[in-house]
Order: sequence, then structure tokens, then C-alpha cells
Amino acid sequence: MVRRSLQVFKIGGKVVEDEAQLTVFLEAFSRLSKPKILIHGGGKWVSEMCRKLGIEVKMVDGRRITDAPTLEVVKMMLAGVANKNVVSKLQGFGCNAVGLTGADGNTILAKKRPVKNGMDFGFVGDVKKVDGRVIRNLIDAGLVPVFAAMTHDGQGNLFNTNADTIASAVAVGMSAEFDVELNYCFELNGVLKDIKDPLSVISDITETTYPKLKHQGIINSGMIPKIGNAFDALKAGVKAVRIMNSQHLPKLAEGGEEVGTVIRK
Amino acid sequence: MVRRSLQVFKIGGKVVEDEAQLTVFLEAFSRLSKPKILIHGGGKWVSEMCRKLGIEVKMVDGRRITDAPTLEVVKMMLAGVANKNVVSKLQGFGCNAVGLTGADGNTILAKKRPVKNGMDFGFVGDVKKVDGRVIRNLIDAGLVPVFAAMTHDGQGNLFNTNADTIASAVAVGMSAEFDVELNYCFELNGVLKDIKDPLSVISDITETTYPKLKHQGIINSGMIPKIGNAFDALKAGVKAVRIMNSQHLPKLAEGGEEVGTVIRK
Repeated sequence: MVRRSLQVFKIGGKVVEDEAQLTVFLEAFSRLSKPKILIHGGGKWVSEMCRKLGIEVKMVDGRRITDAPTLEVVKMMLAGVANKNVVSKLQGFGCNAVGLTGADGNTILAKKRPVKNGMDFGFVGDVKKVDGRVIRNLIDAGLVPVFAAMTHDGQGNLFNTNADTIASAVAVGMSAEFDVELNYCFELNGVLKDIKDPLSVISDITETTYPKLKHQGIINSGMIPKIGNAFDALKAGVKAVRIMNSQHLPKLAEGGEEVGTVIRK
Repeated sequence: MVRRSLQVFKIGGKVVEDEAQLTVFLEAFSRLSKPKILIHGGGKWVSEMCRKLGIEVKMVDGRRITDAPTLEVVKMMLAGVANKNVVSKLQGFGCNAVGLTGADGNTILAKKRPVKNGMDFGFVGDVKKVDGRVIRNLIDAGLVPVFAAMTHDGQGNLFNTNADTIASAVAVGMSAEFDVELNYCFELNGVLKDIKDPLSVISDITETTYPKLKHQGIINSGMIPKIGNAFDALKAGVKAVRIMNSQHLPKLAEGGEEVGTVIRK
């Protein structure tokens, strides 16, 4: 049996919350002809709304501490505003999107992150299981799943979960049936040889070249965990991981393979 | 071919926004064995959040005027908080719910309500078309669609739409393939002979008995448009319309047919 291809994309709050950038991305996304899935964040809006409502914003190492009032705001801004904006815009481009959280269709089951060394992240979930079967049924019905970065525990509780982590878990979960390419979109053009030169994109990284690049200090410290996660996804069955600028998706949609940095085994 | 049965339920904000009432309803809903769909409102939360954010609440004849800032709050509270609370609670009861707006899967297409006599309702949509095929695909995949009362125009715009209207449109739209029962849940036990006696429920109303009940003044003025809409749904293919107390769903789930008022041709 020929395995089908699937493209998984992750965009962060910076793209979702910028009308012009979001339009460029979604218009190109809608033109991709292979089966596809989009995962989005929207953290800045959550922080802004917390401030408007007098809810303290607490971050530890870039991760949000999600107490009960903050969880309500995550539902509002992520599952509500961000997700429905993306879905309705995609519909406007003729792409039959369906917005989901991990609770919808029981697609992404998680467990509350345990308290460790007295540190309680609150309603933050660590992914336990992705139900690839439900997601595949949606794709086979001609729908394009669009995930807000939320999960649930199957006991009635919703959780805030990092969008990068969800993208990786969904990509791995779909790898049993599809040849999956996982695309992380951000504001840089890819992994850069020289952080000051936006054109110095390293076009590909493999298990062979990675140690060398790291050793030479070419890959900077901020990039190391991202690339480590990419290799983990590859080990778990994902075919390729791309790190790219969200605004370069039109190039990719037009068939250009030379976009961003592609990480392969 | 044997036609399948489908039960469509509508609950209002009063049920969605009351933890205890919502739990009674959803626990029973999860036990209904036939294919089913839930439509919910959540208007009180929208008004409360508008007030918190300093957005003026404007209602005309009980209908919300939805300007751009109010539409954001509708996305937040209806598609975000209310919808995801219902979905995650249903998952907790073992019911594989999937939350939707009319934009998701292009299920409910609408057009902006035209300005009439200088009256502009803003981002309020009148339903044009329900895509029964997508909804049936979800049901056939073992999912239970849960609609927040929002629609879209297919051009990127979301609308606020009355939940009763959506319930009726979905019930009619599904009638091509299913024998549909449409259930409106509210705080009374049904259509009452005597509004002061909660036990005086009229168990059934037909095209034959309705004019008599109306003539005798037994059906009060507030009920007349509701029953008029029910007969419209019956004419458009729905098999039966029930008006019932949301807190009596456990009785219905246990096989009791004698719940609320059933309206048939």
C-alpha cells in the first residue's frame, strides 16, 4: 500500500495575532494540495486579556503558570478568538478547516503536569496520547484539522499545552499511517549560520552534520533544544522536520523545496 | 433503506452557565444511545464579559446587537469557554463530543442580516444553508457534534446567530437522511395549561389541537412564536419537536416518553 503524505504546520502567536502575516500564511496554507494539519498558539493575546481582567501573568522559563482564572482566558483567546479567526479565514480561502482542541473528538489526551520541587504549573497538560484514527477520519472526510494548543484529561478538565509539543505529538501520532513532514514556522528564515545574516540559512541538517555544526559553535544555544526535539520526532517516525519563516510558505506552496532548514535522519 | 433516528437538543445559556444544571443535563445526554447533536447558547456570559471589558451591551427585542468588539466577546465566551466546557465535560462522561461553530467544516453558512429601517444588528447572521453531509460524516465517525451558536459567510466573517434558529436549521438540514426529533430545553416543564401550575403540562399538540388551544387562550402569547417555529420545522421535514425542562433529560434518557410537550403534525 502506498503511504500518503501529510504536512503538519505549527504557527505561533506572533503570526496568529498579526492580521497581515496571518493572511499571507493562511492563503498559502490553503493552496497546499496534500493532506494537512495546522497547530497554533496565541499566547500574547492570553497575556493581554489577563492584564485587562486583572489576572496576574506568571511565567517560569517561558512557560505559563495556568491557574483557574488563567485557564478561562486560555479557553477564551486560544480556543475561542484565535482558533475561530484561523478557521473562518481558511474557509474564506476555500479550505474546509475544522477547529479543535485536544478535547474535541478526544484527539489529544494529556495528564496534569505533576508538581515538582514545589513548582505547580496549574492547568498545564503533558501529552499522553494522540488519537490518529479520529484525526484521519476528519482528513478522509475532506476536512483540515486546526488545533488550538489545548489538551484534556478525559475527566472533564482542559489544559494549556505548549503548541510546539502538540505539533510534535500530532506529527508522531500520524506517522503510523502517513509520511509526515513537520514544519515549525517562526520569524527567522531557518537555522542560520550567522544569526546576524538572515540569508545564511543552513538548508539541511542530518545526524551526521549536526554534531559538527554544534561543535563548531555554528548552531547557537537557543536552537539546540529545538533541533534536539526535531531529532526526537524523527526517531519516533516523522520523515522530516522543517524550521522556516511563516512568511515563506507561499514559496513552499508554489513547489519550492528550498525553504528554511530541513532536518532529516 | 431504514432511516436512522437523530436527536437534536438545544440548551440555553441558563443551563450552560450553571455548573449543577449543566452536569445533570450532560450526564443524561451522554447516555442517549441514538445519534445526537447539541446546540448551545451562552448569552449571559457574553453580556457579563462585555461589561467587564467596558463594551456596551445593546439588545433590541431580546436580540443582541453585535458590533466588532462584541463579536470578539461572542467568540471568547461562546466558541471558547461555553463550547469547550461542554465538550470536555461530555468527554468526562465518555461521550466523544466535537465542538463546532458554523464555520468549522463549513457546516452552517449564513449571510449578514441586512440593515432594515435603519436597524443594523451588526455581525448577526441569518442561516442560508446547513451542510448535512459534513455533520453526518462526523456522526458516522462516532463523534457527537456540539454547536456554539455562531455561523459564517464563507468569506472569512463569523456571525452571532440565535441558538433556537440554529437548532431548527440543523434539525431541518439533517431531515433529508434522518428521522429527526428536535428538543428545545428550557426552564419550564413544557407548554403549560396554567402558567402558575408547573405540573399542568400539555403532553402533545398537533395541527388539529393547536388552533383550539390558541383560541381558548390556553397557550399564552410568549409561547405562540415558539410553537409557530415548531410547526415550520415539522413542515420542513422534522418528525417531532419537544419542548421540555433541561433537568428532565434523565427521565427521557431512561426511556420515559412522557417528558415535556411533543408537537407533531
